[in-house]
Amino acid sequence: MYEDINSKDLMCLWICTIQTSLWKAWVPFLVYPFQTCIHSFFLPFPCCFCFHRSSYAGELFFVRSTMALKAFVEVKPDSHFSIHNLPYGIFKRNGGSTATPRPGVAIGDYVLDLSAIHSAGLFDGPLLSSSDCFHQPNLNKFLELGRPAWKEARATLQKLLSSAEPALQNNASLRQKALLPVDEVEMLLPIAIGDYTDFFSSIHHAKNCGTIFRGPENPINPNWFHLPIAYHGRASSIVISGTDIIRPRGQGHPSGNSPPYFGPSRKLDFELEMAVVVGPGNELGKPIDVNEAAEHIFGVVLMNDWSARDIQAWEYVPLGPFLGKSFGTTISPWIVTLDALEPFACDAPNQIPQPLPYLAEKISKNYDISLEVRIKPAGQEEAFTVTRSNFNHLYWTITQQLAHHTINGCNLRPGDLLGTGTISGPESDSYGLVSARGMVTMLDLVHAQGRSYHMCHDYPYYFTCEV
Amino acid sequence: MYEDINSKDLMCLWICTIQTSLWKAWVPFLVYPFQTCIHSFFLPFPCCFCFHRSSYAGELFFVRSTMALKAFVEVKPDSHFSIHNLPYGIFKRNGGSTATPRPGVAIGDYVLDLSAIHSAGLFDGPLLSSSDCFHQPNLNKFLELGRPAWKEARATLQKLLSSAEPALQNNASLRQKALLPVDEVEMLLPIAIGDYTDFFSSIHHAKNCGTIFRGPENPINPNWFHLPIAYHGRASSIVISGTDIIRPRGQGHPSGNSPPYFGPSRKLDFELEMAVVVGPGNELGKPIDVNEAAEHIFGVVLMNDWSARDIQAWEYVPLGPFLGKSFGTTISPWIVTLDALEPFACDAPNQIPQPLPYLAEKISKNYDISLEVRIKPAGQEEAFTVTRSNFNHLYWTITQQLAHHTINGCNLRPGDLLGTGTISGPESDSYGLVSARGMVTMLDLVHAQGRSYHMCHDYPYYFTCEV
Repeated sequence: MYEDINSKDLMCLWICTIQTSLWKAWVPFLVYPFQTCIHSFFLPFPCCFCFHRSSYAGELFFVRSTMALKAFVEVKPDSHFSIHNLPYGIFKRNGGSTATPRPGVAIGDYVLDLSAIHSAGLFDGPLLSSSDCFHQPNLNKFLELGRPAWKEARATLQKLLSSAEPALQNNASLRQKALLPVDEVEMLLPIAIGDYTDFFSSIHHAKNCGTIFRGPENPINPNWFHLPIAYHGRASSIVISGTDIIRPRGQGHPSGNSPPYFGPSRKLDFELEMAVVVGPGNELGKPIDVNEAAEHIFGVVLMNDWSARDIQAWEYVPLGPFLGKSFGTTISPWIVTLDALEPFACDAPNQIPQPLPYLAEKISKNYDISLEVRIKPAGQEEAFTVTRSNFNHLYWTITQQLAHHTINGCNLRPGDLLGTGTISGPESDSYGLVSARGMVTMLDLVHAQGRSYHMCHDYPYYFTCEV
Repeated sequence: MYEDINSKDLMCLWICTIQTSLWKAWVPFLVYPFQTCIHSFFLPFPCCFCFHRSSYAGELFFVRSTMALKAFVEVKPDSHFSIHNLPYGIFKRNGGSTATPRPGVAIGDYVLDLSAIHSAGLFDGPLLSSSDCFHQPNLNKFLELGRPAWKEARATLQKLLSSAEPALQNNASLRQKALLPVDEVEMLLPIAIGDYTDFFSSIHHAKNCGTIFRGPENPINPNWFHLPIAYHGRASSIVISGTDIIRPRGQGHPSGNSPPYFGPSRKLDFELEMAVVVGPGNELGKPIDVNEAAEHIFGVVLMNDWSARDIQAWEYVPLGPFLGKSFGTTISPWIVTLDALEPFACDAPNQIPQPLPYLAEKISKNYDISLEVRIKPAGQEEAFTVTRSNFNHLYWTITQQLAHHTINGCNLRPGDLLGTGTISGPESDSYGLVSARGMVTMLDLVHAQGRSYHMCHDYPYYFTCEV
């Protein structure tokens, strides 16, 4: 099964694109193992939430007849970053003495430097005019301010960027300072992540995982229907889109009574997820009410929860995932706010049995975001689709997840990350990971598509993921 | 079984003291539930690594005929804090404008202010003289410097504090500024903890846990003998000795097919642990060799891994502990360095099967530290001993734990905390938790001792732990 791993040729995998009918959102994952550290990217597909190095060609837009707002900045029809989105990230200019990390929002093919806008006195609302939150190397201070400040920032920025507003549009000097072409900046991790939690909230994924690890008879444990199951993940190894990940080494699950094997993982997998970025936290011992949980959610990122299934299968009893996950988790550089996502809210699924009162929501929302992942082997023209899924496959909502997280008094902090868990649909072509299809690896999946692939056997191998 | 929980009277539990023949180390845990937030402490037992508020009466000393070094500061014979220990912590003066958190070491009944010593130019070694690591609100910057700097600091401080050295001893003004009576300071969390990991490395504890959660037939899963099992814990809720912890609410494990119950935990437990404080970290993708792992360990703290067994039992399949642990973890304010512990190193146990090469150590060390925990119900004169254990019951050494943690490329950072897991011995009176004795709670244990207790049923209840 793994003999191809011994090939010394290079292999290039493409995993890419997420898209929705209402809101075109693309997630390309570029997976690229090498014999050496030297590598390069190319991104033939539009990508969402991200533009990495000079490879950006992204698209995200909202089609709503009620949305007549138009930016003075050129936003191509296929851009992800219209005036209705305005996702937040942290960037620095490429090189030079001014390469200080600072907050920005994406608009078309530009990044708007929020520190420059603030210094120019254009954040003139009561909550932000005297705040230094846009002069920080991460977004945590802004997240801590909460929804009133986020709304003030959104209203200010939509006004400033609109074609009807002269303040920035007609100030050439400020435009030159504050509006930076995306190929002149480098995106960085947007938040300092204190704690990272990963939930397990897609019923189809729970069923797939249960079948893999415990067999098909009773794949979903009874507790799953009563609470949003989760585990604590590793915060230190969360990296931004495009960061090299070395294929992990570890102990793999032995067959029968043989001893475990050791070496580079033979069953490296991806997991298609989104993750909530926490805004204001709560004090230790003071749970957050489920009906107020949305006030503690700033926005969402795309996430690839890299998973080494052989390491995971051997180590996870009884304390859960550890080294099978902690070698790396990739998130998108742009955080799309919950306010921007509001037009795409939809009903959450009916829950049976009825949740306990602390999880019962007055309004239970999901979001209609179609998710798609593709792989494009090196040297081939066409990518092939691995997964078509949708955020609305979540059984437990993100607000239920957050409320459950704190019911025991656990304190959340601004910048904490709560992964949704793999978002899978009911059919095999909607699974948000590869191994649900009979414990195959990403390589096997490529092979199953009748496409050739090769993989060097020397350690280390480098993988890179673009989200 | 739980009817006494309905009583509205107050209950006071004492859990206390750790001691060793070579090195008297005391861990008092004070557990104190209330109907209101208002509370007070008294600590009739000597306590190690900690002095909290004005209650300190601690003892830690090294009995070694080769250690002739004597401090000019008075160190009572029963003090924990001789010139051979010099544990590090973060303190601030009680009130006043100078209440800035800063690093200190404990000596007798005093805290030596390292920022004052540095400002006076007395850290004159090559690594520390120009460093600002002692002017920080936590120890992370000092930890990052590594063992050469730690040895330089230890040598400098032992010389400065010795009765043969006049520099501090004869400088009344500096002494007054730098040497602060312990009852004039408040201890704070000594490190900014990026990630907290909890191992599961005592074979007796693994057997007890396996028996509780999976039955007595095969209590220890086969993987346990091949690798140091661990899980990621919650960093945000790690608190310093003496911090109030509210008894967690959550879903408890149902009986048979009945639905889960919800409410304050009925099976609150403690876990007696120690934890490694990480010094220099490693880059993502670059494992730490097991024979170099000690260079990445600054020292150890005492830890109480509070655990709600009913919440844990219901939620832990398949992803491990989550809310059953994340409501609070208490650590001691003082970090005892690995250099100070060196005289108490002893052989680690023989491991069968032989570990894989990446876990095979040239020298495999444990430390001979006897651990003792006591409970003293409110209003009673006598405490009773719950546990007598020893750090040397660890099967997997702390260096194996650290090397295993990074073998997949996971990056550690300065200030990360690696718990040993509960340290239990082979006999029931050496178990480092209560629930191993037939799923009883702390309250049941008090009851089993023929001692009366009461517990209010109003929520919240406050617990406080002193380590």
